[in-house]
Amino acid sequence: MKNYFSSNFRLGVLGGGQLGKMLLTETQKFDIYTVILDGAADAPCAQICNEFHQGSLMDFDTVYNFGKKVDLLTIEIEHVNIDALIKLEAEGLEIYPQPSVLKIIQHKGKQKDFFVKNNIPTSPHKRFSSLAELKKEQFNFPFVWKSAQFGYDGTGVKIVKSESDINLLADTDCIVEELIPFKNELAVIVARNKSGEIKTYPVVEMEFHPEANQVEYVICPARISEEVALKARAIALKVAESFEHIGLLAVELFQTANDEIIVNEVAPRTHNSGHYSIEASYTSQFEQHVRSILNLPLGNPESKVAGIMVNLVGEEGFSGNVVYENMAEILKMDGVTPHIYGKKETRPFRKMGHVTIVNNNLAEARKTAEKVKNTIRVISK
Amino acid sequence: MKNYFSSNFRLGVLGGGQLGKMLLTETQKFDIYTVILDGAADAPCAQICNEFHQGSLMDFDTVYNFGKKVDLLTIEIEHVNIDALIKLEAEGLEIYPQPSVLKIIQHKGKQKDFFVKNNIPTSPHKRFSSLAELKKEQFNFPFVWKSAQFGYDGTGVKIVKSESDINLLADTDCIVEELIPFKNELAVIVARNKSGEIKTYPVVEMEFHPEANQVEYVICPARISEEVALKARAIALKVAESFEHIGLLAVELFQTANDEIIVNEVAPRTHNSGHYSIEASYTSQFEQHVRSILNLPLGNPESKVAGIMVNLVGEEGFSGNVVYENMAEILKMDGVTPHIYGKKETRPFRKMGHVTIVNNNLAEARKTAEKVKNTIRVISK
Repeated sequence: MKNYFSSNFRLGVLGGGQLGKMLLTETQKFDIYTVILDGAADAPCAQICNEFHQGSLMDFDTVYNFGKKVDLLTIEIEHVNIDALIKLEAEGLEIYPQPSVLKIIQHKGKQKDFFVKNNIPTSPHKRFSSLAELKKEQFNFPFVWKSAQFGYDGTGVKIVKSESDINLLADTDCIVEELIPFKNELAVIVARNKSGEIKTYPVVEMEFHPEANQVEYVICPARISEEVALKARAIALKVAESFEHIGLLAVELFQTANDEIIVNEVAPRTHNSGHYSIEASYTSQFEQHVRSILNLPLGNPESKVAGIMVNLVGEEGFSGNVVYENMAEILKMDGVTPHIYGKKETRPFRKMGHVTIVNNNLAEARKTAEKVKNTIRVISK
Repeated sequence: MKNYFSSNFRLGVLGGGQLGKMLLTETQKFDIYTVILDGAADAPCAQICNEFHQGSLMDFDTVYNFGKKVDLLTIEIEHVNIDALIKLEAEGLEIYPQPSVLKIIQHKGKQKDFFVKNNIPTSPHKRFSSLAELKKEQFNFPFVWKSAQFGYDGTGVKIVKSESDINLLADTDCIVEELIPFKNELAVIVARNKSGEIKTYPVVEMEFHPEANQVEYVICPARISEEVALKARAIALKVAESFEHIGLLAVELFQTANDEIIVNEVAPRTHNSGHYSIEASYTSQFEQHVRSILNLPLGNPESKVAGIMVNLVGEEGFSGNVVYENMAEILKMDGVTPHIYGKKETRPFRKMGHVTIVNNNLAEARKTAEKVKNTIRVISK
């Protein structure tokens, strides 16, 4: 094992947003010198990493030159210049997740093809390189359209219900999927290190708002049968093994009407669905990511207590300097921990933070989560 | 409530060592802008706070000028220039713990007098202003001698067994205490905010090495009867109430042969005996300190799981660039979390970090703690 702790070892991270910030908590805990690259001078990580570099993650030279300054490179966002990573890797830099894996996952068409090739259950799909090409095809409505690249938090995904909807689609490289009716949207985080050690986190469940069709709560453990949970973990594990992925992989899954598990898509990094782990798990997803990329033994992914996560997003109708209204009210509630990402300006639906609710009893945590959701407001002055 | 989160509010902290570093984890989580003053340019906090100022904590002008740059001031070490704090407070700055409380606690003679005056059980003591004055007195041996000021981690404390030992004592303001034989050394952390809300953490127990007479494990919960535990928490609460202390107060206690609880001494801050709380408690002592000084509602101090803390101190015979030998071995063990403070140089007995072991079952945690203790070594290259 290399000497990572209070040493001259330099860990590089592409991206300095909230995922990077929560990763820094872990590198600080281990005193691993961490260098961050991000496009924004006021990125959440800027003031609290050992060294901050400002520059575009999509620019070849910027990423390449940054890579030359570190001993091992990882990412907190997958939209980065992969060509620079490939060159750096060829020149001997360790990069996890591997550029070859990122290249596949970054492109939803290649990602789906990979699932099919590796017998990973997923909804049937077709790839198109332009809107014109797509228009030549006959479809059963409704279907799911996804931009092949750069989608984020639901952007770049549309449910197409009729011919007229097709004309509203962007003219871009895309995939079309069968719309699978599902009972539950689930996720499993998998960690794998260079030695091939691999561990899956418990299954989490996304609970949707009954009308708004938005995820309201991420719940761990998912309220599903043990049989379905084991199937979900086994499939997620298979996905990470197929990629020979090193680092954290978040596998988003659907539980179908007849309890089949199919893979929706994957993210090659720490993930919103794993934020509960900071308070609830023996090893948080962020510590686990550090362990996996440095080829340290993986930690216990099981939970101490049940955990529920509520995203804090900017309220509609408010833009400007953020105010977290009623913070004192939620801090009064048992087992409630707010995480504030450090973005000074709120905008409608901008992810500004999250709140974790933990309790020995999941039903109690669920009640508190609803109170939190109905109490705190992300507004502006 | 003031707007502390992602706002222009500036929290000042006197001291940038490991306690400050673990506090930063919490201020980062809440995105509270934190400014640190420390004498050492390479203090553990230097690179990871929002703003770092280098300067002596004992220098009036340095502390006063630093205080003028922040909206609220706290400490991570009690050895600071109190006169500067008194002036800042008189000029309207909020300082927690209060300078008047720090002034008493900073001086062990005043601290003991305070206990006596407030009917807080403690061992009988006498104060002396010099060694010459002490020598005039007749003593029963053995007794405990404590330097009145600036003791740290056992420095400034001596067990005096004979007349000849007296000649080895420093010529300084000091106290002499009766040596009380005790069954257990315990500690209770109390949090209190400006509104008067007060919460005690569970009692922790110091387990000593059978021969070396050094604390080996800090164990939560202490393996004592519920009756003794409740008495210890009640006495600790009374101490904090008596001081009208705002912030965290660590109360060190002895359980005597006949199960009386007496107060040994107090520390007006986060404390080594509360490090287990980061992994084991619903609210870590560092988050609780932030909540208490900002007059936020206090969090739940109870534990999710049992926790044991092992200090990582520099091994005898090694000085220089630190290496944590066998880190991979301890990371393999379940529920084990190392904290590395970020001191580049090890020296014999220097506090370099700590390891927390958590488990649902305290006996299991105790077994793992012993394995950790026997495995990891803090040495130099």
